[in-house]
Amino acid sequence: MPHLGPLRRRAWAALLGQLLRPPSTVCTRGCHSQVAKAVLTSEQLKSHQEKPNFVIKVPKGTRDLSPQQMVVREKILDKIISCFKRHGAKGLDTPAFELKEMLTEKYEDNFGLMYDLKDQGGELLSLRYDLTVPFARYLAMNKLKKMKRYQVGKVWRRESPAIAQGRYREFCQCDFDIAGEFDPMIPDAECLRIMCEILSGLQLGDFLIKVNDRRVVDGIFAVCGVPESKLRTICSSMDKLDKMSWEGVRHEMVAKKGLAPEVADRIGDFVQYHGGISLVEDLFKDPRLSQSQLALQGLGDLKLLFEYLRLFGIADKISLDLSLARGLDYYTGVIYEAVLLESPAQAGKETLSVGSVAAGGRYDNLVAQFDPKGHHVPCVGLSIGVERIFYLVEQKMKMSGEKVRTTETQVFVATPQKNFLQERLKIIAELWDAGIKAEMLYKNNPKLLTQLHYCEKADIPLMVIIGEQERNEGVIKLRSVASREEVTINRESLVAEIQKRLSES
Amino acid sequence: MPHLGPLRRRAWAALLGQLLRPPSTVCTRGCHSQVAKAVLTSEQLKSHQEKPNFVIKVPKGTRDLSPQQMVVREKILDKIISCFKRHGAKGLDTPAFELKEMLTEKYEDNFGLMYDLKDQGGELLSLRYDLTVPFARYLAMNKLKKMKRYQVGKVWRRESPAIAQGRYREFCQCDFDIAGEFDPMIPDAECLRIMCEILSGLQLGDFLIKVNDRRVVDGIFAVCGVPESKLRTICSSMDKLDKMSWEGVRHEMVAKKGLAPEVADRIGDFVQYHGGISLVEDLFKDPRLSQSQLALQGLGDLKLLFEYLRLFGIADKISLDLSLARGLDYYTGVIYEAVLLESPAQAGKETLSVGSVAAGGRYDNLVAQFDPKGHHVPCVGLSIGVERIFYLVEQKMKMSGEKVRTTETQVFVATPQKNFLQERLKIIAELWDAGIKAEMLYKNNPKLLTQLHYCEKADIPLMVIIGEQERNEGVIKLRSVASREEVTINRESLVAEIQKRLSES
Repeated sequence: MPHLGPLRRRAWAALLGQLLRPPSTVCTRGCHSQVAKAVLTSEQLKSHQEKPNFVIKVPKGTRDLSPQQMVVREKILDKIISCFKRHGAKGLDTPAFELKEMLTEKYEDNFGLMYDLKDQGGELLSLRYDLTVPFARYLAMNKLKKMKRYQVGKVWRRESPAIAQGRYREFCQCDFDIAGEFDPMIPDAECLRIMCEILSGLQLGDFLIKVNDRRVVDGIFAVCGVPESKLRTICSSMDKLDKMSWEGVRHEMVAKKGLAPEVADRIGDFVQYHGGISLVEDLFKDPRLSQSQLALQGLGDLKLLFEYLRLFGIADKISLDLSLARGLDYYTGVIYEAVLLESPAQAGKETLSVGSVAAGGRYDNLVAQFDPKGHHVPCVGLSIGVERIFYLVEQKMKMSGEKVRTTETQVFVATPQKNFLQERLKIIAELWDAGIKAEMLYKNNPKLLTQLHYCEKADIPLMVIIGEQERNEGVIKLRSVASREEVTINRESLVAEIQKRLSES
Repeated sequence: MPHLGPLRRRAWAALLGQLLRPPSTVCTRGCHSQVAKAVLTSEQLKSHQEKPNFVIKVPKGTRDLSPQQMVVREKILDKIISCFKRHGAKGLDTPAFELKEMLTEKYEDNFGLMYDLKDQGGELLSLRYDLTVPFARYLAMNKLKKMKRYQVGKVWRRESPAIAQGRYREFCQCDFDIAGEFDPMIPDAECLRIMCEILSGLQLGDFLIKVNDRRVVDGIFAVCGVPESKLRTICSSMDKLDKMSWEGVRHEMVAKKGLAPEVADRIGDFVQYHGGISLVEDLFKDPRLSQSQLALQGLGDLKLLFEYLRLFGIADKISLDLSLARGLDYYTGVIYEAVLLESPAQAGKETLSVGSVAAGGRYDNLVAQFDPKGHHVPCVGLSIGVERIFYLVEQKMKMSGEKVRTTETQVFVATPQKNFLQERLKIIAELWDAGIKAEMLYKNNPKLLTQLHYCEKADIPLMVIIGEQERNEGVIKLRSVASREEVTINRESLVAEIQKRLSES
């Protein structure tokens, strides 16, 4: 048995041991060939003996996407990418991992959540944490001063996964960013417009985009008396307001981060404000905020932004929300986050809570951090949280009982008789040559009923049937699977007839 | 300056130091706002001072794909995926990394080439090395007995990169596989048919698919006298025949792997054979091979395969080649590898050598290795080497001077006058609402010439022009960028007119 070479001594011992067991445990079904059967048996033993507690699974916080899920995923991505292209964005791809030093100092408190690669002798690498930092690295590396790009790809974060809400450690992001020196707030307004277009297009129900400005946040902190050294860490506490009550956040600020209670209370007073352009006007007159030049600059830009949002026809979807902080360290100006107001499932049994489904902001200093000469390329952008949207769409489909086709096969090549493999192979090759999506069963002599069932299960619309009589008469049968209607046509007009039918449907 | 909070002591020292330098080194161009300027300056200093030898780059053996490259890449992937769908495949996605134990013992000699993740307290993980092993893991985990799936995704191998030939450490694979118990060689033949369709469709020039069978390889080794313990390692030496001469391979077998010289010479006699179905017939009569049951089984299946390839109309593209071994450990039956016979660039200056562009084979025991009960799911599949194909297509385009559009923008919204931002924003929102791909400059008062240049550079076919006169008369100008023809139309028929023009072009 020369094929059993790779088996180690233990496996041979196992094989020997197996021969003493009842045969029923050895092979549960027929095998493709004698040899396969022999090798299979020993492989089976190998897994039995060497991995008694072997559990097959994917890494924590990750998942496979089944064909059904892939179809839904692709529909969502198509809509998102179409919108990015509608706004003139170019595609970009960057490696899954970056030099570790490229990612350090970009994510403040979240640095420990990075997946590092093992030091295997060479560079120190980490999996990317988002698509924004690699984009900034790309701009600096290629000395690009402006670019409107989109990127779709996986990112990895070692957070506690909350899979029920669509939070994974490996997840897909869809990013759109505008880099370059432009007149204030025009690209920022376009980013918000894109978020609206995508969320409307995906029909996830009513949504709201919360807007704030990092300078307003920092200005509030300053006038409330947050010490400069605590600005970023207090900001990252405030970012938890979407998952935590103000009481919880206040406790973290005071007990964990050593903020004076009265300072926290002053912040608490501000974070309750939200509203439209009139709130911006009111805040301009706030005697406390007027002490901060930063806050006034932020408010000035927000006022302009709301003017552009009105012209873009989306002002009603946007709300200034002083509690919005955004956790990432690199934002410098406007920040935003989209939340669903009423999930599409609320009419049904379950209540779905998925947090924000899209977010972004302005980051004017990130590119300079990569450039050896510190050249400055202001950027603004957004990221769509596909996983959460996917979760909602999937739930919605489950509740409506909507069926998903996982293949696109148009024609099935069948026979009611034995010994028609040759004809089926020739016919299907002819269909493939014509670009027609076609399948057949990989059996020499399949039963007609099995073939019909396959078509019905896979929702294949057309069936080509070849048998003795058809072959002798130079004809072929074409069957509509849904209506069960059959017509007999000339063998040579098969492709043309199928193409005609497909173009009509 | 409360915004400067995150700066550490060293950065403050640097800022101080910077103030003593000539101002020209501080800020090279205008900044978006005063605040941005202040922060920028300190960030610049930070990078200057803290990273004097800071080099921006991507990890060894990886690369970014620029927008130009992305367009080419997407065209190639579209063709490949269309072919997979034409053959009824379903999509699948698996995580970028797997539990390390899922990948061990699958790649024989190549195990050291895996990227491991750092042990950060939790599971031991490795980046996937191919898409085949995750597919087998998916089948076993979900107890699936049959599936026709495709998967497109990145894989990672710590090999010596040879970037000039399109060999990277991070690269994209496109896999198609058929899992399940079927009648012999029908799915195997379809895999070869798919390789032919894809390689023909991509117009890479003439190609040949080398075919062999692992059982024939093992049979040859057995009758030549290779000891059972050396079978896999000698096979992995033979796999190097596409990169190395027989002399080099023979040396490795004898000097490094301790094979008797006369055994190596007997192998050397076999590996020179290649040909079509008649070679299969000849080998059946070979007195040496007749001693090996395994080899005879392999030859029997190859005979059947060639019969099906003839019916599929691709027999002339396939050659039985006894030197083909395939390095991966998991193959058990038919193996194949596609090579380009004449690269499309040979007419030009450079000679391109890219090795195999597609490969695959039958692996009947891999799924059983994952199944705790050792259940057996035979599989056959193929993998398209996108990176190498991409390299060829890119070279071909460079030589022909073919230009690539990196955006799909259809309409540009322009103005020849100052203070027309509001109108432009309203018009472009109207176009986006209608699904029209539209851009404008992010300037309050752009120059008309700048706007015209933008359109010409980006190959945008249509331009909408709004000015004082148009606004007063309730009309708008529509300009064809290529022909420079302008027409004045009613403002309210703008969208309809653009859609008419776009549907005609």
